[in-house]
Amino acid sequence: MNSPVLGPGTDPDNGKNASGAHERMMSLALAEAERAFEEGEVPVGAVIVHESRIIGKAHNQKELLRDPTAHAEILAITQAAEALGNWRLTGCRLYVTLEPCAMCAGAILQARIPHVIYGCDDPKAGAMGSVVNLIQPVRFNHRVEVVRGIMKEPCQAILKEFFATKRSSGPET
Amino acid sequence: MNSPVLGPGTDPDNGKNASGAHERMMSLALAEAERAFEEGEVPVGAVIVHESRIIGKAHNQKELLRDPTAHAEILAITQAAEALGNWRLTGCRLYVTLEPCAMCAGAILQARIPHVIYGCDDPKAGAMGSVVNLIQPVRFNHRVEVVRGIMKEPCQAILKEFFATKRSSGPET
Repeated sequence: MNSPVLGPGTDPDNGKNASGAHERMMSLALAEAERAFEEGEVPVGAVIVHESRIIGKAHNQKELLRDPTAHAEILAITQAAEALGNWRLTGCRLYVTLEPCAMCAGAILQARIPHVIYGCDDPKAGAMGSVVNLIQPVRFNHRVEVVRGIMKEPCQAILKEFFATKRSSGPET
Repeated sequence: MNSPVLGPGTDPDNGKNASGAHERMMSLALAEAERAFEEGEVPVGAVIVHESRIIGKAHNQKELLRDPTAHAEILAITQAAEALGNWRLTGCRLYVTLEPCAMCAGAILQARIPHVIYGCDDPKAGAMGSVVNLIQPVRFNHRVEVVRGIMKEPCQAILKEFFATKRSSGPET
């Protein structure tokens, strides 16, 4: 696992977007989504940052691993917990190109991640406001701050391209 | 992974409780919860059945694996998908001693599991009716039938004993 030190302007202590840190991290998440696309997976990527270091970076691998839990966020959370030697990811920020589903929003709550930054909404399965809002205060015993819409257009465009390609190549199995 | 053929009365085609099949499977899930208890983990166990065979059996290993996603259901789902070579767990039944949390309810939706049978409710984190109901029809694009309260008392008793022991041995970290 590479753990590059982030550039100047990164603010590891909270979710604020100091000098475009959010865009830099989302670019890395998007690069992960591109890898997923190349592998024939729904193109979603995620990055987890802790104290100016990337400790989790993954893309959706549901088809490759034949595992319904192998979403980008779940894989990145498991990596990050391994890196810290602790299941509590307090002090971490999770970047993901698409609004997390219920499973991933639930995992974010389980991991006590305080800051989530995502690219585009998921009107069909999003669990941070689109279909349901699992992270609204008072519902569960953990507070998550969310920033929405960082690099929304490219995060959405890669998904649209993926599904257009799938449709043109025949019916889904 | 052991894959014993289930005894008579098992109904692999749907979630009906033919001749106490639910209790037999829940007993195995409870045995998994007991293993969790012995290992110092919150005692929750899960079993997944497909066509009269157990293809997933796991207990909570969050502390051991230092992984916030290592709930019994997630581990059992990953095992079952590996056993079938497919992330779609259609035709499966998931037994779990405690009402699934949001992460696990979301994973059940992702895996397309049609039947869930659980022991006791989780008033603090349950996502199949207690805090939120993620599996209610029309919310997401998959229907889950749920049977609640199978072997409720022993499933609840082991959790109460675990937390009483934790409290008497000092404050939680």
